[in-house]
Amino acid sequence: MGMTLAALAVRHNCELRGDPDEVVDHVATLAAAGPRALAFLANPQYRSQLAGTRATAVVLASADAAGCPVACLVSANPYLSYAEMAHELHPPAPLRPGVAAGAWVAPDARVGAGSQIEPGAVLGAGVVLGERVHIGAGVVLGARCQVGDDSRLMARVAAYDGVRIGRRCLVHSGAVLGADGFGIARDSDGRWTKVPQLGGVVIGDDVEIGANTTIDRGAIEDTVIGDGVKLDNQIQIGHNVVIGAHTVMAACSGVAGSTHVGTRCIIGADVAVAGHITIADDTVIGGGARVARSIRQAGIYGGVVPADEVRRWRRNAVRFGQLDDMARRLQRLEQVARDTDGSEP
Amino acid sequence: MGMTLAALAVRHNCELRGDPDEVVDHVATLAAAGPRALAFLANPQYRSQLAGTRATAVVLASADAAGCPVACLVSANPYLSYAEMAHELHPPAPLRPGVAAGAWVAPDARVGAGSQIEPGAVLGAGVVLGERVHIGAGVVLGARCQVGDDSRLMARVAAYDGVRIGRRCLVHSGAVLGADGFGIARDSDGRWTKVPQLGGVVIGDDVEIGANTTIDRGAIEDTVIGDGVKLDNQIQIGHNVVIGAHTVMAACSGVAGSTHVGTRCIIGADVAVAGHITIADDTVIGGGARVARSIRQAGIYGGVVPADEVRRWRRNAVRFGQLDDMARRLQRLEQVARDTDGSEP
Amino acid sequence: MGMTLAALAVRHNCELRGDPDEVVDHVATLAAAGPRALAFLANPQYRSQLAGTRATAVVLASADAAGCPVACLVSANPYLSYAEMAHELHPPAPLRPGVAAGAWVAPDARVGAGSQIEPGAVLGAGVVLGERVHIGAGVVLGARCQVGDDSRLMARVAAYDGVRIGRRCLVHSGAVLGADGFGIARDSDGRWTKVPQLGGVVIGDDVEIGANTTIDRGAIEDTVIGDGVKLDNQIQIGHNVVIGAHTVMAACSGVAGSTHVGTRCIIGADVAVAGHITIADDTVIGGGARVARSIRQAGIYGGVVPADEVRRWRRNAVRFGQLDDMARRLQRLEQVARDTDGSEP
Repeated sequence: MGMTLAALAVRHNCELRGDPDEVVDHVATLAAAGPRALAFLANPQYRSQLAGTRATAVVLASADAAGCPVACLVSANPYLSYAEMAHELHPPAPLRPGVAAGAWVAPDARVGAGSQIEPGAVLGAGVVLGERVHIGAGVVLGARCQVGDDSRLMARVAAYDGVRIGRRCLVHSGAVLGADGFGIARDSDGRWTKVPQLGGVVIGDDVEIGANTTIDRGAIEDTVIGDGVKLDNQIQIGHNVVIGAHTVMAACSGVAGSTHVGTRCIIGADVAVAGHITIADDTVIGGGARVARSIRQAGIYGGVVPADEVRRWRRNAVRFGQLDDMARRLQRLEQVARDTDGSEP
Repeated sequence: MGMTLAALAVRHNCELRGDPDEVVDHVATLAAAGPRALAFLANPQYRSQLAGTRATAVVLASADAAGCPVACLVSANPYLSYAEMAHELHPPAPLRPGVAAGAWVAPDARVGAGSQIEPGAVLGAGVVLGERVHIGAGVVLGARCQVGDDSRLMARVAAYDGVRIGRRCLVHSGAVLGADGFGIARDSDGRWTKVPQLGGVVIGDDVEIGANTTIDRGAIEDTVIGDGVKLDNQIQIGHNVVIGAHTVMAACSGVAGSTHVGTRCIIGADVAVAGHITIADDTVIGGGARVARSIRQAGIYGGVVPADEVRRWRRNAVRFGQLDDMARRLQRLEQVARDTDGSEP
Repeated sequence: MGMTLAALAVRHNCELRGDPDEVVDHVATLAAAGPRALAFLANPQYRSQLAGTRATAVVLASADAAGCPVACLVSANPYLSYAEMAHELHPPAPLRPGVAAGAWVAPDARVGAGSQIEPGAVLGAGVVLGERVHIGAGVVLGARCQVGDDSRLMARVAAYDGVRIGRRCLVHSGAVLGADGFGIARDSDGRWTKVPQLGGVVIGDDVEIGANTTIDRGAIEDTVIGDGVKLDNQIQIGHNVVIGAHTVMAACSGVAGSTHVGTRCIIGADVAVAGHITIADDTVIGGGARVARSIRQAGIYGGVVPADEVRRWRRNAVRFGQLDDMARRLQRLEQVARDTDGSEP
């Protein structure tokens, strides 16, 4: 199932520089590529590998074409073009429709045409699956869950009662959708009473949810994940959160309860977003940042102090605890300097 | 199954201002509430929504009563009163006692009266369940686990051999209880040997454990979670840790091995507590803090530098690496100023 | 199944001070030990418990032997010696070979001699298990996964298609191996297209992987975990990462995509390592550090500013946002001082 470079160029709107009849049948990295391999160059960090590549063709930007020793497919967005070509060269395995022995499907659950349910899956009362849905081994869907057409739930996803998942979604193993939000009320003795979590989780179309990510159900209304959102692994989304369409979050980040994240935001790994705040559309937040207040204006935000040799770090960290004192002493010295200079009253 | 405001007021010790015969049958937010809805106001951030609410009644503090356009139930602790009323208006679905087809229960396991075991659950040798225990789909209980009366383990909880869970607990999907603690010993070649993890996990009564939270078994003695503790999602509790009664921890926090956390502590999200230390009773730790040393005195502790516009952040972060140098230079200038002034020797 | 101190001393190359015929049959902590217990002292924090111990014998370093009130086994590496003795005193339960009812094994999967597969496990087409492999309840192995001799996968591990696990590995519950890496390409409308994740995951021999840890498959080539690596709970390993042999990482740490971590590194808890960088062999990184750039030279690196009383912390955190300004003002004062002094032009 190889493809000619001519076909790739036409289908993906790239300019071909090289022999249109050459054929590729798999993707590879620049460094490891061999015959019939398609490689790509998108991250400048790997530009030095271009000259030595043995790929049959490389997807790249026009600025890199001159340095390419083999055929190239010039794209205005090489990474996107590569992604699309890779889907064609490596299509997912077709579904094997049907309910496997060892899957437990409630009598009143509805399973759309072409769907595949693997062993150990458990579908509760009133579950509704669309067409061509893939339910992996050991997936648990609580009562009344809905999953749209062409969505795939990998092994061991758990969705609580009433979770709604859109079309063409991909949910990875270990994700938990719809567990109770963290709502607790304290009494005068310092003991905590659970606040019932009565809302749901609504996930749009074309959403990807990473392995072991957790998305809590709303306290009263729904937690909402917009269309096209991509969440990496081990992300935590609190109750009542709204994530706007086409926003992406890298691994190990979290959004606390009732926060609204805008559309088309890009949130790095290990970011913590406080509860009850708002993040503007198109905001970019660098990895490791702690977002404590609303971001009302789109922009790029950061928040990491990089690791350092440990003794030097410790010396500086001690000084952090003296910063306010240092600032006040600096002000006094400036005052002294001004008084001495006499230029200000 | 509606309830009159009169009944709610009496049962929950609130002062009713409004028609005692009005009926509510569900909860709603102030903004979205309609007929027969009970809303509440506890977080001042939502006070502006009170005037426009269409709820039938609102649970609130006396200071807010004057601004309420509908009936109100005045409480000294509105959030707690709301929680209790919400439990009454939205009781959990009753259990369907019995062992489902597709659940695997060891012959010598004991299952108390009224308990429900869902498909795909696996109960090992010698497991003992109390009465009215709910074991969700795909839950795995290792040999000799014990679960007390009225506890609920949601889908896909895993407990290793010998884990003991108290009464009225709620453990969410993906939680792993009793995996090995991280005990490893290094040899002179830099290779690591596993230290057997031989202790257990003991969880008190009325504990809630969030989705994908992990609680390791002790190395020799037990890891202990006290009565009434509430742990949010994706929390990591290391081996030999003791969490005191009625302490709560928000999502993504972690406590390293052998640390003792006191009773009634409140620990925010994304907090990291070092190993082998002690946290005093009634300590409050803000989200994102890194607790590196014992906290011997109750108080409020914090530790986040909020995200900032990224170029500004980077400029300041570079200066963090120069802090000790800045402090020394400041001291020298102060010395110069003192020498110049002549007021100190 | 007790053992004499003489036998332990000989087998583990320790110097025995005490009665060689005394017998121990279990391990215990210094503080809780009673008759027939073997305790150990490795962490100086627990030295004060030595004098009062009622253990039959204590494994310790020669410097501590004089203060030991009972028999002692003197070792150059007490923690390692204790680990080895504890394995002997508390061997794991033997396997019960066979495929349990309620496990689903593809017809063409190969299961080596002496292996045990528990209920609810699902083994896909072409899976190959070595000898004496333990597959816990609810484990899911995708098509063509390989697991080497004597490895143990605890309940509810999930491995995607084609994951390769070496010999003598231990993978804890909830771990997800081989989920898609976070590869997405953005189009000009701000929408994201998934980049197919076509590589695998290759895990060496003697690796331990903690509960709910996630290791993504490579984008094109493999994600590689070297021999002897020990990963604690809730760790996230991105696509294309290489972790060198005998490196250890404590809980809640993460390594972003395409980063190479060297051999014999020691990485603390809650460490975040950026993508596309390199960490030198034998590097030590303290808990909580954010590693933003390559570490080319082995050493000890740190990065935590410890929590503080919250008002004091906030005052200092505000000053952090003024640091660059403070540094510039400090420079101006120094210039003024130099001009005044006249000692520099």
